[in-house]
Amino acid sequence: MHTFTCRVYYEDTDLAGVVYHANYLKFMERGRSEWLRDLGLDQRALKAEQDLVFMVTHIDISYRRPAYYDDLLRVETQVLDTRRASIIMMQKICRDGDVLTQADVTVACVRPSSGKAMRLPIIFRQEAAI
Amino acid sequence: MHTFTCRVYYEDTDLAGVVYHANYLKFMERGRSEWLRDLGLDQRALKAEQDLVFMVTHIDISYRRPAYYDDLLRVETQVLDTRRASIIMMQKICRDGDVLTQADVTVACVRPSSGKAMRLPIIFRQEAAI
Amino acid sequence: MHTFTCRVYYEDTDLAGVVYHANYLKFMERGRSEWLRDLGLDQRALKAEQDLVFMVTHIDISYRRPAYYDDLLRVETQVLDTRRASIIMMQKICRDGDVLTQADVTVACVRPSSGKAMRLPIIFRQEAAI
Amino acid sequence: MHTFTCRVYYEDTDLAGVVYHANYLKFMERGRSEWLRDLGLDQRALKAEQDLVFMVTHIDISYRRPAYYDDLLRVETQVLDTRRASIIMMQKICRDGDVLTQADVTVACVRPSSGKAMRLPIIFRQEAAI
Repeated sequence: MHTFTCRVYYEDTDLAGVVYHANYLKFMERGRSEWLRDLGLDQRALKAEQDLVFMVTHIDISYRRPAYYDDLLRVETQVLDTRRASIIMMQKICRDGDVLTQADVTVACVRPSSGKAMRLPIIFRQEAAI
Repeated sequence: MHTFTCRVYYEDTDLAGVVYHANYLKFMERGRSEWLRDLGLDQRALKAEQDLVFMVTHIDISYRRPAYYDDLLRVETQVLDTRRASIIMMQKICRDGDVLTQADVTVACVRPSSGKAMRLPIIFRQEAAI
Repeated sequence: MHTFTCRVYYEDTDLAGVVYHANYLKFMERGRSEWLRDLGLDQRALKAEQDLVFMVTHIDISYRRPAYYDDLLRVETQVLDTRRASIIMMQKICRDGDVLTQADVTVACVRPSSGKAMRLPIIFRQEAAI
Repeated sequence: MHTFTCRVYYEDTDLAGVVYHANYLKFMERGRSEWLRDLGLDQRALKAEQDLVFMVTHIDISYRRPAYYDDLLRVETQVLDTRRASIIMMQKICRDGDVLTQADVTVACVRPSSGKAMRLPIIFRQEAAI
């Protein structure tokens, strides 16, 4: 399981005094980006050199408890399954051990110039085997 | 079914040249806000006078095709089910008749001062009966 | 002077109960986009066919009064000056005739592939003459 | 001078492949928040216990060079002047020693319940004297 920490700033909140629901998706995407970086993948190079990007195709997200301004959140990322051209991850956003938000996120490997699905980089097939 | 139209601006896009995945949730929330307005509900008054807000508790969203800069999108909102303290809606984001993104969204009626679930305003029970 | 109307949604607010300060820049950018559209300019075609985009190079913005959730705002856009490769505009965000936020915004015409400044499309030189 | 580091994620970019201009204001606000924290100020407590928030009243920002996806940015914050109820700061966003964006930002101390200007907490008067 990969973990990443992020702080809640003013930009993330709404007038209800809590984190705006769409912004948890940003925190999760930051978590996935840092996970890819820690795996040794350079998304900038993948796009420039291999014409390959990751695109979210499905999210199933449950909001259990709100996060507040100034909270220090922990984003957990775990691979549930890998297929030929996509990965399914479970991601949690936690505060002090409490799960605030949890999601299953499917990300596909896509050729941006054509929109076609691409085979996952080999690192993920190894990762899934762990 | 309620429909609402919105334009894609620079702020909505990301470096992949398409609408950033979290921003479709904003378009859907705009659609729900306009639907509530068209039902005659004033969310500002609901909060100030009845201490009542709507909070998203669950979203299941599928991204089928990307939306692009300058697209004119149609947000469709349809009630699937109403419960004592929550509503389940199906929302679609379409361009020229094509469904780009589709989601089931559950919204709960909540007392923000206490966080407790509240009974839905009567208008929704009528709406569901239609 | 060009005018454009936009509504304040949950996404635009922060925990202070008002529009988050950076989001007024989004409203202004929407206003400029609609102004370009009304001038007959297609920014998508400009980029694809002429390798030309508009980039903000300077903003001087004063926040006088806050905008609130559900406000209907009027974005006013007026050309102050045009130069060889840039335009200076005055933009105001108003509610019921009150100016909430006012900015001088400089936008440059740029070749995105090289980053070089480009001469403004002829339409702006005509616009400035009016 | 206070410094703070932040990473550019997908959410921050737009279709021009660079950081969307309004999002630099978010990075600067994060920098100010971390500066206040390092000064020992708890903005959450200030609001709850003293009914006091900081509100941006003026920004003069110059965009010199773009920031890109995955960049590690350094946000510099420096007090230029303090007045009875406001602070003027100079903030820079840098990458590898290059200043990408620079702004003068005025922040006022405000009572949110009434909107009235408030005297700055004593810590800033000390800070300014340094």
